[in-house]
This record gives sequence, structure tokens and C-alpha cells, in this order.
Amino acid sequence: MEDQMRQPQASPEVRARIQASFDRQGLMRHLGARIVHIAAGCVRIVLPSRPEVTQQHGYVHAGASSAIADSAGGYAAFTLAPENTSVLTVEYKINLLAPAEGDHIEAVGTVLRSGRTLAVCQLEVFGVQDGHRSLVATGQQTLMFVKERAEQPDDQR
Amino acid sequence: MEDQMRQPQASPEVRARIQASFDRQGLMRHLGARIVHIAAGCVRIVLPSRPEVTQQHGYVHAGASSAIADSAGGYAAFTLAPENTSVLTVEYKINLLAPAEGDHIEAVGTVLRSGRTLAVCQLEVFGVQDGHRSLVATGQQTLMFVKERAEQPDDQR
Amino acid sequence: MEDQMRQPQASPEVRARIQASFDRQGLMRHLGARIVHIAAGCVRIVLPSRPEVTQQHGYVHAGASSAIADSAGGYAAFTLAPENTSVLTVEYKINLLAPAEGDHIEAVGTVLRSGRTLAVCQLEVFGVQDGHRSLVATGQQTLMFVKERAEQPDDQR
Amino acid sequence: MEDQMRQPQASPEVRARIQASFDRQGLMRHLGARIVHIAAGCVRIVLPSRPEVTQQHGYVHAGASSAIADSAGGYAAFTLAPENTSVLTVEYKINLLAPAEGDHIEAVGTVLRSGRTLAVCQLEVFGVQDGHRSLVATGQQTLMFVKERAEQPDDQR
Repeated sequence: MEDQMRQPQASPEVRARIQASFDRQGLMRHLGARIVHIAAGCVRIVLPSRPEVTQQHGYVHAGASSAIADSAGGYAAFTLAPENTSVLTVEYKINLLAPAEGDHIEAVGTVLRSGRTLAVCQLEVFGVQDGHRSLVATGQQTLMFVKERAEQPDDQR
Repeated sequence: MEDQMRQPQASPEVRARIQASFDRQGLMRHLGARIVHIAAGCVRIVLPSRPEVTQQHGYVHAGASSAIADSAGGYAAFTLAPENTSVLTVEYKINLLAPAEGDHIEAVGTVLRSGRTLAVCQLEVFGVQDGHRSLVATGQQTLMFVKERAEQPDDQR
Repeated sequence: MEDQMRQPQASPEVRARIQASFDRQGLMRHLGARIVHIAAGCVRIVLPSRPEVTQQHGYVHAGASSAIADSAGGYAAFTLAPENTSVLTVEYKINLLAPAEGDHIEAVGTVLRSGRTLAVCQLEVFGVQDGHRSLVATGQQTLMFVKERAEQPDDQR
Repeated sequence: MEDQMRQPQASPEVRARIQASFDRQGLMRHLGARIVHIAAGCVRIVLPSRPEVTQQHGYVHAGASSAIADSAGGYAAFTLAPENTSVLTVEYKINLLAPAEGDHIEAVGTVLRSGRTLAVCQLEVFGVQDGHRSLVATGQQTLMFVKERAEQPDDQR
């Protein structure tokens, strides 16, 4: 995983398009999530722990973990998408391995296979406390590339 | 589905325990979700559409849909759980069938099988506009029953 | 489910194309599976119990249940496919609810949503003993429609 | 992956118990599958390509790939199971990434997390042609540990 930290960032243009799309996701802003790394085929999103994202035991809610994991996978696929293409999540499956606790959680979406129409991503969610990372959820996601309509020239994902 | 509306509500005690657990989920409150029906083996949760829960195209974010679907399934299993038992989501899989749009979305969790250790739920998410319901996501969820520890006597889910 | 028995069969042409494709599946023949009903959007496949399809406890192996469930869903989607189109399984998820036992097992694939590129099916597997049906597995499957290449004019699925 | 080839084998006792359980799986024998490596937390099963395991295009049927992947994951979890414990597959999800072709296919089940009651495995299936391996399917599996009943003292999985 730490190797992924060292992956070279995607081009400034790709990063700008992803950041602009992310900034339009009201949910990500409302949750307090932010993108921390955009490499070709791998995107990482961080969510600080706070009462607004918890489940009934005080851990980060699986829905919040899944939301940032889904977005991380979607943008990871987007880094490999053809020009003028949006990415839609077709489906995903996630196993919750341990309570999501820590200062923050971090979702890593990594493209396993990218084709003409579909992509498949691995999703991982880590709880991070004082720099120590622990895997709390793991998943698998299928995405579809969709040609942008001319009316939505600025629609990145 | 409308038949589910007519399902008899669970006992006042079960409903009170579920509502109390739900009220402790910071994420549900932060999203603006509320439980609208608690029957034995079937729970329905509603989320009004608003900018705070959108993805980049203005539809309800898959992460928000998944969050209320996960909670609906979890509480549906809880209605059938043995005394002094919590319910944990082991995993779920969800297919996003159509953009989640409407005045609000509604998640329905329905127990398909409930055993001694595990339960399996069907998850459905509908977009609702002017009373018209349209299926936007469908999923399947595995949950585990866990004995409450004595230190957590008030911990319902 | 019994209602599905009464669903009108698909057209003779569709049934013939599906049967021909099924007959080319070496695995279905090797397992001893056969198609028993082809309706628009719903296909049923039966597998007799015998030692060649068991797991270590003598029940039907999850792999055999999954194989006929996958084929049932694939052909269900095929009944709704555009002309000159093949159907590929993108992914599926299956929960094994109970030991698969009985005289035979029966898989039912039912299309939940069929679009231009993708279809989503519900998968159910029943153990059948003396006419009594019991749900032993339930799943969800994503399929893709692929244009036939001219070189494969007789390739139905 | 090649590193997995070099993983030390599990103890002779564990290997013997797994081989004995595998030998009781009628389906594995009927398909022609065999276990090729048993390490702690990782098991590999090979299936030679032949007409008896194909789908309608001549590739290995997804049902056959899934069957050996399910068994590989189940036995991988079994290597880490407490004494006198069986392993049951709760559910799995598999993405089919490419046609399964080659001299043979090989499934690798690797334990991601093993707890007191549940285990989660990664499933990978490779097509192997002339020693060249290509990933054709990837999945995720949930398993449950079940205490052996006294009446089944020799029941390993």
C-alpha cells in the first residue's frame, strides 16, 4: 500500500478534471471527504472521523466507508477512460472486515482491468490512527464507460 | 412493494429499540434519513433529495443510497434477532440500475433468511417522485448476529 | 415461483436458439443439466442430484448450483437481447442459504433490468424433493450484450 | 503470484485432511480438478481444459471456474480453521474479466481475514497456456467456521 503513495501522480489535466468532478459531489463535501492522491489507475480518498459519519457504536458508518470507496474506484477508472467519456458504477460488493476506527479512514480504488466498455476495480478501506493503517473493508466494483453527450462537455465523471 | 406498506408494524418495544439505535447513527441524521416503517423482517428508510447527498450529476450519490439500504437491511435483521443480540453487516453487494432521482429515495431491507448466526437480506432502493416509485438499485446483504456484552446493555444493533 | 411455471414460453425461434447454444455448453451436458422452461426474461434449468455433482458432504456442490444459475440468468437475458447479440456474464454474487439437497436442484434466472448494454438478473436455486421446493441459494448477476461478429453467425449466446 | 508457488506447504496433517475432503467432492473429480498447492492461508487448484468443462464458445465455463475458485477459497480458510471445525461458503462474488482459455485454468484462494466465526478470501482464476498466466476472473468470498458434530469426526471441510 505504501508503494501506492509513491505512484507518480496523473497528469495535471486529469487531476484537474477529477478534482472538478469531485467538487461537484455534494455528498463528498457534506461528509468532509477529500482526494489525496490521483495516479493512473489508482485514486485515494480520505474521510476524517467525526460524529457526523458514525454508526450507532461510534465507528465510521459502513455507508460512509462505501461512499468514499465507490468514489475512489470511480475516479481510478476515470484516469484510464477514453476521451469524452463518463464513468458510471454498475455495481460493487464490499466486505466489512473490522470496525472502521481511527483519526480518519482512507479508501483506495485500484483498477484491476480496464476494457473498452467496462472496468473492474479493487476497493480497500483502511482505518488510520497515528499513521498506523489497518484494513477495515475490501471490495470489488464494476464500472461502465459512457460517451459524453455533446450537451455535457464539462461533465467529467 | 405497496404490500409492504400494509405489513403490520413490529411490537412497540422492537420499534423503540430500533429507533433508539438509529438515532445514535450520526451519519443517518447528518444525511437527513428517517425510518418510516418497521415490520417483522422488513424496514424502510427514506432520504429526501437535497444538494448535500448528490453525486456530480445532481442525482443521489450511490454512497447515500447504499448507506440507507445497508441500515434498512441491518434493522430488518434486527427485528428477527434473538434477545441481547447485535447485528453486524458482514458484506453487501448492490447493483445501481438507474440514476437515483425524485423528491426522495426509499430503501427497503427485507430478510430472505435468518439463522442462528447469519441473516441474508434483499436490499431495494426506489426513487420516488410525486408518489411514483421506480427501482434504482437492488442488492443482497449478509449480516451476523453477535451476542451483546454485558457492558453494552443498551446497545441495540 | 409456481407462477413462473405458467409464464408463456418464448417464441419457438428464441427457444431453438437458446437450446442450440445450451447444447454447445460441454459443462451443462457433463453435469447432466437441462433447460426446462424458457419464457421472456425468465429461464429455468434443472440438475439431477448424483454423485458426480456433490461436495464433500454429499450435497450438490455450490459450484454446480452456481453453474446452472449463471446459465439460467444468461439465457434469461438472451431472451430480451437485441438481434445478433451475444450475452456475456460480467459478474455475479451468490449467497448459499442452505445445503443443496433433493432429487434435483432447479435454477431460475429472472431479468430485473435490461438496458442497451447491460442486464441485471436475479438468480434463485431451489432444492426439490418430491415436488417440495426449498430456496437454497440466491444471487444477483450482471450481464453485457455484445454485438455478434459476422464470422460467428450461429453464435447465440 | 509466483511467490505463492514458493510459499511453504502446510503441515502434512493439514494437507492430508484437505486432500481427503477434496477427494470426497464428486464434482471436483468429475470435472478433473486437482489440488496443486496447500500453504497456510492459500490453496491452488488446477483444472485442465477439455470439452466437458466448456461453455458454448469453447472456453472454460464460468461455472467451472467458479467451482474450483470456491473450493480453493474454502480450503484456504480451512488451513487456518480451529480444531474440529468445518468451513462453509456463505457467499461469493466473482467478476469474469476475460475468456477462460489455455491448457488449464488455475484457481488461487487466499485468506484476507480469518476470525473466530468468519473468514474472507480473495479468489483469482488464471488461464495458463505454455506456462504463461493470465488473470481471467477475480472474486471475493465469505466463509463460516462451524463446529464439527461428534457424529462426523472425519468430516474435514
